[in-house]
Amino acid sequence: MTDTKTQAAASAMWGGRFAGGPAAIMQRINASIDFDKRLYAQDIRGSKAHCRMLVRAGILTAEDGEAILGGLDKVLAEIEAGDFPFSAELEDIHMNVESRLAALIGEAAGRLHTARSRNDQVATDFRLWVRDAMDGMDAALKGLLDALLSRAEQHADTVMPGFTHLQAAQPVTFGHHLMAYVEMISRDRGRLTDARRRLNESPLGSAALAGTSFPIDRHFTAAELGFAGPMRNSLDGVSDRDFALEFMAACSICAVHLSRLAEELVIWTSAQFRFVKLSDAFTTGSSIMPQKRNPDAAELIRAKTGRVIGDLNALLIVMKGLPLAYSKDMQDDKEPVFEAADTMELAIAAMTGMVWDLEVNVAVMRGAAGAGFTTATDIADWCVRALKMPFRRAHHVAGSLVKLAEDKGVGLEDLSLDEMRAIEPGITDEAQRVLSVEFSVASRTSFGGTAPQRVREAVAAARAALDAEAS
Amino acid sequence: MTDTKTQAAASAMWGGRFAGGPAAIMQRINASIDFDKRLYAQDIRGSKAHCRMLVRAGILTAEDGEAILGGLDKVLAEIEAGDFPFSAELEDIHMNVESRLAALIGEAAGRLHTARSRNDQVATDFRLWVRDAMDGMDAALKGLLDALLSRAEQHADTVMPGFTHLQAAQPVTFGHHLMAYVEMISRDRGRLTDARRRLNESPLGSAALAGTSFPIDRHFTAAELGFAGPMRNSLDGVSDRDFALEFMAACSICAVHLSRLAEELVIWTSAQFRFVKLSDAFTTGSSIMPQKRNPDAAELIRAKTGRVIGDLNALLIVMKGLPLAYSKDMQDDKEPVFEAADTMELAIAAMTGMVWDLEVNVAVMRGAAGAGFTTATDIADWCVRALKMPFRRAHHVAGSLVKLAEDKGVGLEDLSLDEMRAIEPGITDEAQRVLSVEFSVASRTSFGGTAPQRVREAVAAARAALDAEAS
Amino acid sequence: MTDTKTQAAASAMWGGRFAGGPAAIMQRINASIDFDKRLYAQDIRGSKAHCRMLVRAGILTAEDGEAILGGLDKVLAEIEAGDFPFSAELEDIHMNVESRLAALIGEAAGRLHTARSRNDQVATDFRLWVRDAMDGMDAALKGLLDALLSRAEQHADTVMPGFTHLQAAQPVTFGHHLMAYVEMISRDRGRLTDARRRLNESPLGSAALAGTSFPIDRHFTAAELGFAGPMRNSLDGVSDRDFALEFMAACSICAVHLSRLAEELVIWTSAQFRFVKLSDAFTTGSSIMPQKRNPDAAELIRAKTGRVIGDLNALLIVMKGLPLAYSKDMQDDKEPVFEAADTMELAIAAMTGMVWDLEVNVAVMRGAAGAGFTTATDIADWCVRALKMPFRRAHHVAGSLVKLAEDKGVGLEDLSLDEMRAIEPGITDEAQRVLSVEFSVASRTSFGGTAPQRVREAVAAARAALDAEAS
Amino acid sequence: MTDTKTQAAASAMWGGRFAGGPAAIMQRINASIDFDKRLYAQDIRGSKAHCRMLVRAGILTAEDGEAILGGLDKVLAEIEAGDFPFSAELEDIHMNVESRLAALIGEAAGRLHTARSRNDQVATDFRLWVRDAMDGMDAALKGLLDALLSRAEQHADTVMPGFTHLQAAQPVTFGHHLMAYVEMISRDRGRLTDARRRLNESPLGSAALAGTSFPIDRHFTAAELGFAGPMRNSLDGVSDRDFALEFMAACSICAVHLSRLAEELVIWTSAQFRFVKLSDAFTTGSSIMPQKRNPDAAELIRAKTGRVIGDLNALLIVMKGLPLAYSKDMQDDKEPVFEAADTMELAIAAMTGMVWDLEVNVAVMRGAAGAGFTTATDIADWCVRALKMPFRRAHHVAGSLVKLAEDKGVGLEDLSLDEMRAIEPGITDEAQRVLSVEFSVASRTSFGGTAPQRVREAVAAARAALDAEAS
Repeated sequence: MTDTKTQAAASAMWGGRFAGGPAAIMQRINASIDFDKRLYAQDIRGSKAHCRMLVRAGILTAEDGEAILGGLDKVLAEIEAGDFPFSAELEDIHMNVESRLAALIGEAAGRLHTARSRNDQVATDFRLWVRDAMDGMDAALKGLLDALLSRAEQHADTVMPGFTHLQAAQPVTFGHHLMAYVEMISRDRGRLTDARRRLNESPLGSAALAGTSFPIDRHFTAAELGFAGPMRNSLDGVSDRDFALEFMAACSICAVHLSRLAEELVIWTSAQFRFVKLSDAFTTGSSIMPQKRNPDAAELIRAKTGRVIGDLNALLIVMKGLPLAYSKDMQDDKEPVFEAADTMELAIAAMTGMVWDLEVNVAVMRGAAGAGFTTATDIADWCVRALKMPFRRAHHVAGSLVKLAEDKGVGLEDLSLDEMRAIEPGITDEAQRVLSVEFSVASRTSFGGTAPQRVREAVAAARAALDAEAS
Repeated sequence: MTDTKTQAAASAMWGGRFAGGPAAIMQRINASIDFDKRLYAQDIRGSKAHCRMLVRAGILTAEDGEAILGGLDKVLAEIEAGDFPFSAELEDIHMNVESRLAALIGEAAGRLHTARSRNDQVATDFRLWVRDAMDGMDAALKGLLDALLSRAEQHADTVMPGFTHLQAAQPVTFGHHLMAYVEMISRDRGRLTDARRRLNESPLGSAALAGTSFPIDRHFTAAELGFAGPMRNSLDGVSDRDFALEFMAACSICAVHLSRLAEELVIWTSAQFRFVKLSDAFTTGSSIMPQKRNPDAAELIRAKTGRVIGDLNALLIVMKGLPLAYSKDMQDDKEPVFEAADTMELAIAAMTGMVWDLEVNVAVMRGAAGAGFTTATDIADWCVRALKMPFRRAHHVAGSLVKLAEDKGVGLEDLSLDEMRAIEPGITDEAQRVLSVEFSVASRTSFGGTAPQRVREAVAAARAALDAEAS
Repeated sequence: MTDTKTQAAASAMWGGRFAGGPAAIMQRINASIDFDKRLYAQDIRGSKAHCRMLVRAGILTAEDGEAILGGLDKVLAEIEAGDFPFSAELEDIHMNVESRLAALIGEAAGRLHTARSRNDQVATDFRLWVRDAMDGMDAALKGLLDALLSRAEQHADTVMPGFTHLQAAQPVTFGHHLMAYVEMISRDRGRLTDARRRLNESPLGSAALAGTSFPIDRHFTAAELGFAGPMRNSLDGVSDRDFALEFMAACSICAVHLSRLAEELVIWTSAQFRFVKLSDAFTTGSSIMPQKRNPDAAELIRAKTGRVIGDLNALLIVMKGLPLAYSKDMQDDKEPVFEAADTMELAIAAMTGMVWDLEVNVAVMRGAAGAGFTTATDIADWCVRALKMPFRRAHHVAGSLVKLAEDKGVGLEDLSLDEMRAIEPGITDEAQRVLSVEFSVASRTSFGGTAPQRVREAVAAARAALDAEAS
Repeated sequence: MTDTKTQAAASAMWGGRFAGGPAAIMQRINASIDFDKRLYAQDIRGSKAHCRMLVRAGILTAEDGEAILGGLDKVLAEIEAGDFPFSAELEDIHMNVESRLAALIGEAAGRLHTARSRNDQVATDFRLWVRDAMDGMDAALKGLLDALLSRAEQHADTVMPGFTHLQAAQPVTFGHHLMAYVEMISRDRGRLTDARRRLNESPLGSAALAGTSFPIDRHFTAAELGFAGPMRNSLDGVSDRDFALEFMAACSICAVHLSRLAEELVIWTSAQFRFVKLSDAFTTGSSIMPQKRNPDAAELIRAKTGRVIGDLNALLIVMKGLPLAYSKDMQDDKEPVFEAADTMELAIAAMTGMVWDLEVNVAVMRGAAGAGFTTATDIADWCVRALKMPFRRAHHVAGSLVKLAEDKGVGLEDLSLDEMRAIEPGITDEAQRVLSVEFSVASRTSFGGTAPQRVREAVAAARAALDAEAS
């Protein structure tokens, strides 16, 4: 028994309620052409590889093959010229292209879909798109590394306060600070490389979900499309979206890195810090307050972290608990990835520009580095080294010296030798030397330390690695 | 000291690296007109209210006021006619409108911005937009309630298995099941109502961040724009985005509700369940497998949960740790809200359509309700009631009866009285009566229980409340 | 056909692989007693209400009822004395309590579970717990409001720079700044109140999922437990976790508010800002650098935003796509809620302490307020008011004045009348008056503006509202 | 000017408000010993490596070195014996261990902290812990692969419906379905391997943030602790938490995989599907409904996805926008990672157990595979191959055949040759052969296809790879 009578009544009501009724709503929620048209180049590239393979395998005649390849090139040209009439009724990019191909070359178009399904087709297209996005992002990060390395080298000796808890802790060099970001961005690139390698297997030939009985050559299409080989399981081929998740996870971590530097730029450009000045290009002013240089680009980069993490979340949640193989839920994979990729591209470009253009207030940084007894650790370390004190006791000596200086309202380096000896008789004038920020910075020669010489070595090593890639 | 020489070199490199250089990148990351043009109606509405107030307060002459109001109407008409030339160089909707106003009416346009800033202007516009979105979503949910109530009333007696762990537990009615969603959706509406109330205060007049020295009347503009009153603190006025967060939190919980019903529809339309059939409008077929009715709309609704939670996350993260008052990060508030609102609108409409059009396989549901000894609790309850057994012991008796029936491969209701008495001598033929699913369902008459009479009362009460709103 | 032979082999392997085998793993993943024992007081309170109702309804004898009530009190006392032997084999708090009750009073214990199920029992317990958490958090927020209001009143006249983009924009008062947080926290309390109202319906009597055939009185138990009434649908009663989601959404937004103030405290306590000093209690020092006062508490509060948003996410994801009624997934509702509640309690307490103890460097704030031409808007507004200029032109005049001052390296207030008149002949010495930060602040008298008089009114109104609650 | 008078008053109020006052609150929010004591083994291991290096470098005497190493072993033994008195006043695991060491060996303990800081110490400890967690998870996933491969081999021929949209689409084998999870889990392991490699650099010797002037040998300590080498930048060394983020991202994707299989198990064990039966160990029953086998473990695994994604979110949000180097916010890194690691360990173990113990209802699966015209694609493919039809037309022929079968209420394989020829005259009895599910499955021999022969090859290849690891 079913309830068709009520059905009729209900449908009437329903029809009155929504413009266009169910069909219109369904088209709106179902059609993906508005966003998946971005896959056009990948879709056509995939179809051409599939077509060539069908001809080689004798599934398609050479004539049909040529007609299809020619037709696809025409479709591509139309789209790139902006002449292509995308249709929401044809739902997605695949049907739009196929339908146009049929209009251009006739029946042969209908043979292209042999031994293929929309399920493996979209998986192939999307992988190709994400791979391109990874490559683009990697190149952009390389550009950012170039900027960071150039500025780091230039400021290998520039002294600034090293902060913990946003409180000056010990002097470091600005070059050393920038090199910390070189490490982060290099790891980001490593993550992209690894994700790309894992992505780089071809789902084409998985067909609907079970593979096919046609004698296709998946290794050939994989090679044509630059994949390392075909995926090993057809169900996995059409239901896997790990590559998109892993890409967005890598984007999220990279976005966190950019947000840290962005936050520093916002703080450093405040009137209270004045460590750096952003170029006009990356600030916005105010016609009324010309001195105001709002660090808009830095703030926007900081904000993008939210968007990218939101995108990662979205797809993780979409994929949670989906039975194999394909579920329509997976159509919601593209928009988050597109947003994440676009966002990262823009954020990296803006950050690169800011780093190149950054004006560094060396004097202000140097002044701040010397305030706040930042060399107290150096005197403690001297006591350990020269007087063989246990570190915990040396700590105590240094604390007493700082207390004295603070009470007198002077810097540590302003204490007389006698004053210092009153606290610890072993102190010599050698000890006084360790109290300058330049000495402090220069002495931190441990591997990875902030000594200018170490910073220069680090820059050189990173630069050499970067150059080696190019060749 | 700054480092302008390197600067020049760097900028040259930089210029070669990115098409258009820094300026182009900055424009792309900075301009919001691509998305904030959706605020045009709210922006103009807010400007008109501000203008009227300025005239009333004597800050603007009547003539200027009329010129501005007329000009704004013209701008509105141009935008709605699709004739408006939006410009990315003018960054955002506010500058686009103001610039066009100046072109239309000349210098008077420059007086509109008196005692106002973009900071309170965008806060006002966005609040008005979110309020409209809340109202639209509330109306859509009302439509969904209408559908649920109609179908629940119709199926107040239709017996189906009530599941826990997706295992049949006790029989319920399909009407009762639908009424659970009436409760959820009603709470969703309550959350929107509360969020709307909290949103409904006017930031207009907060100016840049500190208020203004002009003798403005914030109560007047608040009333003009349908706000309950002005916000009480100007810093809060320009830096608060709670209303957007609370809206998206309400959307997220509602999306979870929709995802639960969507999941049920996906499972229920499987060949194995066949509890319901979706209408053609909300399924997609396959030219080759006409019996295949993919529940695409339900799957897409289920997926939308991910998108909406992702949007909520994005803005929570954007707002984390922002110092007062306005930071540019907050420009990233709109896209997540737009996406969440659009997504919810579509998902609710699609769900409403599916509920109206649902074909219920009453016989299949009834059959499933009787399988699996789902009335075992009823016999246990009978033992408690009639034989005064402690419930835990009655549980044991029922368990033994089920074991016997299972071993014999029959239903509980097929056991003879003698067989039952061998397990518990107190059992009478009255006890046998409680074993039918119809009896079971009818007996659950506790408030909120599944008895058809209770379901009808619940429908009537909810329907009455809904009708009362309208009047 | 099944495959039991392989089974046996597999189980042997499996047995060797994991200590304790499947049973041990299942117990670990399944048992909830480690965390749900926090529900003990609510569980016993709910059981007592249920027991009283059963007696009133004649389902339980008065004797049994008294035995049960006495036994439950004894169990409660044992737990609170720390003498209760919680057992993981008894899985959860409900079974632990029931089992102990049986040991204490014998068979009558088995009658308590009449017309009840673990499904409605846990829903009731958890609602009671969350309600208590809401009440606790609301009281804590009231304490924070008290602190904010007291400090705002005290600093109603204290001038500081109002920031946008962390760049000084216009002078405001510190009291006004704190009052922005009063608004945020008041909204947080509003959200808790609304969420509490929506939570405050009793699921007890929903039984397993379908209601019951026993003549129970759900209105009585609801009243006993302080609920406004019973929930209207038994399926919803056992499968709804909206109350937990809404609580965590409210916590997340509140955490964002706290993170904003925390970020400000971190920035303001830096050596570069020195706007405020935190008390010893809420900073950590270093034995070697006694001047270092790390704002650990503020940093930890800022971090907690991540934890609380993570908790909200976790439960939204758990609930996504769950078919009705109860699924075991829902057991994962408690830990995120417990963590969110504990985290908020601690973060609010720490923030309250910091606000009370905050030392304000009035002179530093005042100095910063005057730097950076922050009164440029005031001169523009004066031109509009006194000279009837359109605002956009007045803006231009102010910009030229700032440019001049900047070139001369002086403040706006240091320009001579002649210098100003060279730019705009209409300027009088009245105009010079508006350039002081005190004048600027005092002039912003619009409703919600930063004028000290407005701040005092706002404090008084908020204080009165707070006091009115108490009575 | 400060406001100490109000301070005093405030503190009094404050003191009355919170038990224990500020100090107690600060201790609660600040102390990490409750959770970071899990790092004890890593902390002691790191200290021993540091100590050995100090001796080798001549910074510590051999005697002091031996005293320290002996003392640390004693501390380790005490902790493992459960005799160690953890103290919240000593805040964290590092201070607890160091303080106990001092009690045991006296002044030499104070020399251990030379050239080291809590910042690099905790970074080292946490990396070691996460590395262990990665190794443990990888081993657990290997166990899961073993189970999947064994069951896949056993069911290489077992036919079941392959689903898309939870609608039967084409027949596949159960072995093939399980092999899709082998692919996913293998990628999960790949992600762990890559993350481990990126994690595996030593922060030890970064000191507070700037490196040190002591002649330490970071390569030695790195090697001692199994790291590939020292990290290259000391600021990065103490402020990087990428390794934790990347671990949790890998966990999140893996949790999504487990949730997909868990969802399938929940659906497949429903009375309507009955594809599989879970063992007693991984289900819970009901004393009253012995037939009920709730798939609790599968549901809990599905739920864990929410928890793990929540944990990833939490730390991404914590790290957003943190300036270098160390901020106290980073103390909130551990609890999310601990929860994610514990959760994954349990979920993988439970899933492994379920897979080993799974009883497969071969007959039910086979029956479902044949229903629903799942071989319609096969007849279309036959038309393409044998009759050289374009695929789109062959699709149409197959659709007509299905329509006929559906109208007659029979399967495709029940149509007579004449009936088929009436639709397409070219059809021969060879075509009828392709309509059996066994033929269909056997014919899908493309690489990665579902043909039993391909499945066996895939199992063999995966098994060989797994075995190769061990040797």
